[in-house]
Amino acid sequence: MNTKAPATLLLLAFACLSDAPGPARAGAAPSPAPSNLPGSEYPRLEPNLGVTFRLKAPEAKAVKLEGGAGLSKEPTDFTRGQDGIWTLTTPPAVPGFHYYWFNVDGVRVNDAASQAYFGYGRECSGIEIPEAGADYYAARPEIPHGEVRSHWYYSKVTGRWRRAHVYTPPGYDKSGTRFPVLYLQHGAGENERGWIEQGRANFILDNLIGAKRARPMLLVIDTGYAAYASGVSASATATSTNLSNRIASATAAFEEVMLKEIIPMIDANYRTKPDRLHRAMAGLSMGSMQTLNLTLRHLAQFAWIGGMSSPPRTGFDVATAYDGVFRDAGAFNKQVRLLWLGAGTAETRFHASTVSVHEALERAGIKNVFYSSPGTDHEWQTWRRSLYDFVPRLF
Amino acid sequence: MNTKAPATLLLLAFACLSDAPGPARAGAAPSPAPSNLPGSEYPRLEPNLGVTFRLKAPEAKAVKLEGGAGLSKEPTDFTRGQDGIWTLTTPPAVPGFHYYWFNVDGVRVNDAASQAYFGYGRECSGIEIPEAGADYYAARPEIPHGEVRSHWYYSKVTGRWRRAHVYTPPGYDKSGTRFPVLYLQHGAGENERGWIEQGRANFILDNLIGAKRARPMLLVIDTGYAAYASGVSASATATSTNLSNRIASATAAFEEVMLKEIIPMIDANYRTKPDRLHRAMAGLSMGSMQTLNLTLRHLAQFAWIGGMSSPPRTGFDVATAYDGVFRDAGAFNKQVRLLWLGAGTAETRFHASTVSVHEALERAGIKNVFYSSPGTDHEWQTWRRSLYDFVPRLF
Repeated sequence: MNTKAPATLLLLAFACLSDAPGPARAGAAPSPAPSNLPGSEYPRLEPNLGVTFRLKAPEAKAVKLEGGAGLSKEPTDFTRGQDGIWTLTTPPAVPGFHYYWFNVDGVRVNDAASQAYFGYGRECSGIEIPEAGADYYAARPEIPHGEVRSHWYYSKVTGRWRRAHVYTPPGYDKSGTRFPVLYLQHGAGENERGWIEQGRANFILDNLIGAKRARPMLLVIDTGYAAYASGVSASATATSTNLSNRIASATAAFEEVMLKEIIPMIDANYRTKPDRLHRAMAGLSMGSMQTLNLTLRHLAQFAWIGGMSSPPRTGFDVATAYDGVFRDAGAFNKQVRLLWLGAGTAETRFHASTVSVHEALERAGIKNVFYSSPGTDHEWQTWRRSLYDFVPRLF
Repeated sequence: MNTKAPATLLLLAFACLSDAPGPARAGAAPSPAPSNLPGSEYPRLEPNLGVTFRLKAPEAKAVKLEGGAGLSKEPTDFTRGQDGIWTLTTPPAVPGFHYYWFNVDGVRVNDAASQAYFGYGRECSGIEIPEAGADYYAARPEIPHGEVRSHWYYSKVTGRWRRAHVYTPPGYDKSGTRFPVLYLQHGAGENERGWIEQGRANFILDNLIGAKRARPMLLVIDTGYAAYASGVSASATATSTNLSNRIASATAAFEEVMLKEIIPMIDANYRTKPDRLHRAMAGLSMGSMQTLNLTLRHLAQFAWIGGMSSPPRTGFDVATAYDGVFRDAGAFNKQVRLLWLGAGTAETRFHASTVSVHEALERAGIKNVFYSSPGTDHEWQTWRRSLYDFVPRLF
């Protein structure tokens, strides 16, 4: 009490001065990465967008950098200094967000200087590399901002608590009107935090809406994982030891959660336009697979569909895919307002597979949009750009 | 696309099946800690509430457990197995939430099996030890739940982006009425995530409101850190190299953010009752110090005050403390509806100091409530219990 506080507490407090998701810009001199926790000098951005990492580990025999392809395609060795401090400067990194961690004698170690992000099924460090001229995912003071709500709910399908993140556009509380909804799915190993923390989806929507390039809408970001509660499964597949049976069961459980729990809950609790013409779904990687599987089999529920960096597939057959939904191109084109497919040029297998599906659909007369993100891999910069391209086309 | 997904992606997905902040219960047999990421067998709760930790580190010379006092008062050595897997079983842990990490040859390593929580100025692992019979912070399906909104805003005082977490009670959107507000501050080294992720403040409020033991209210949880933007400081103290000057400047900046930015923003954007009789503030540790410093000097703004585990202080003088606010007991008691002080019995210095302030105030005729949390240290179980005792007394 009073200002005579224990100095240690206050020193710790100074180290934590809250920082900003503001516009990220590369400088002419080395500077702390914009994603660093306040007060951390390293990781340090070099003027050429290389990154210098540091770790004190006097007893270690080997320290490596591992993580996202645009930062560290292969594990890269640090060099030990006399003082037991290991350092590494990478080649120029690809702009955008990269997961990373240090491998210290075989143990994965997060960087104390960075925030943790959920990826690869665990908490990883993350770094933001500024992209020159790209301010579409920056937080900008001059425009109004939406909110992101954490909405907890108990799922009877899975017998577990779940949390949806719901973005409400600027002015939602006071407008009194109803809004369309985009359901947005993360990738494998990530969760419902990804599109906000890594993807900055809320800031992308703020910027698009602020520039009147997109209609105000809700985003609903939930987890893509689901397993039937014991006793709830409609079949014996949930507990099967056979992998493809278990995948089928998880797919069915996820679809049941989405169609019977999440969508009705959102329509009941938020001012939505609760019809297919005002409902979109998109996802990245595993989330793209889930989106296409679900929407193309439930067109009575969705009229706008986005598949970002779908897992590579072979043997795509227009006539039989998704229970034959593409067989009647005229009917499909009339019913579906947007079928959007995209990938980054550096995620070559994903890109090639997506191009090939896109072209097969074109040949069959199925209207669809293909978006290519230059130079980005199976990482979040591809999906930020994808969202930025996809959203203005909606509703 | 389709259900023929790459098996690796799906296997990763299975490892991530989203889990539940549901009621935590100790079992008769060893079981995964309720805070484990889904699929993680360790850390494992033993029937006596000891915890078994595991880490694979074949090259390490020494592995220690470090963290919260109720789990590991002193660093504790792991034992190496033949297979390079280190294990440790602790004595019975104190129920509640504990930060922890592994020290591997001098390097701090988070546990890949647990979520990360912001404490000690960095991302730490955390573990939840069930408290028998305590369901006041559990997510319970049978009662309605509020939401927690992330509200980003640009602070002109600090020249930085900040994020407030705002808990809205069940039914907020549809009620149309106005609500009182409790501003709630974290401790040093933590941030605005703490009261939700570690403290489970939203579930505590849900349970109290659901049982009609507390009035529906908003919680506003922001960071306690602030520094004047260059050029904004009213004095030269912000850039002083003198620690006490810098503390004074940070204190002033925080108070300016709270009084001139946060409170007006909340009153403008949410349906609040924007007067002192419907505005409370409370905080823990550093946040308690901030709360008492701010509210006791601005009673025109606050009528309800909570100080949890205030940093130990000597020389508390009723006549001069907080600019002499306690000098006229009659006037103080008339103006302040609640002055609440509390601490845990195991945080002995904090507890003794709080008792001594409480008694000095009593002797001076200043009405105040003292709450003592049995057996808990300077950790979150003390603050969960404190919130649970404090909130029903409000408004």
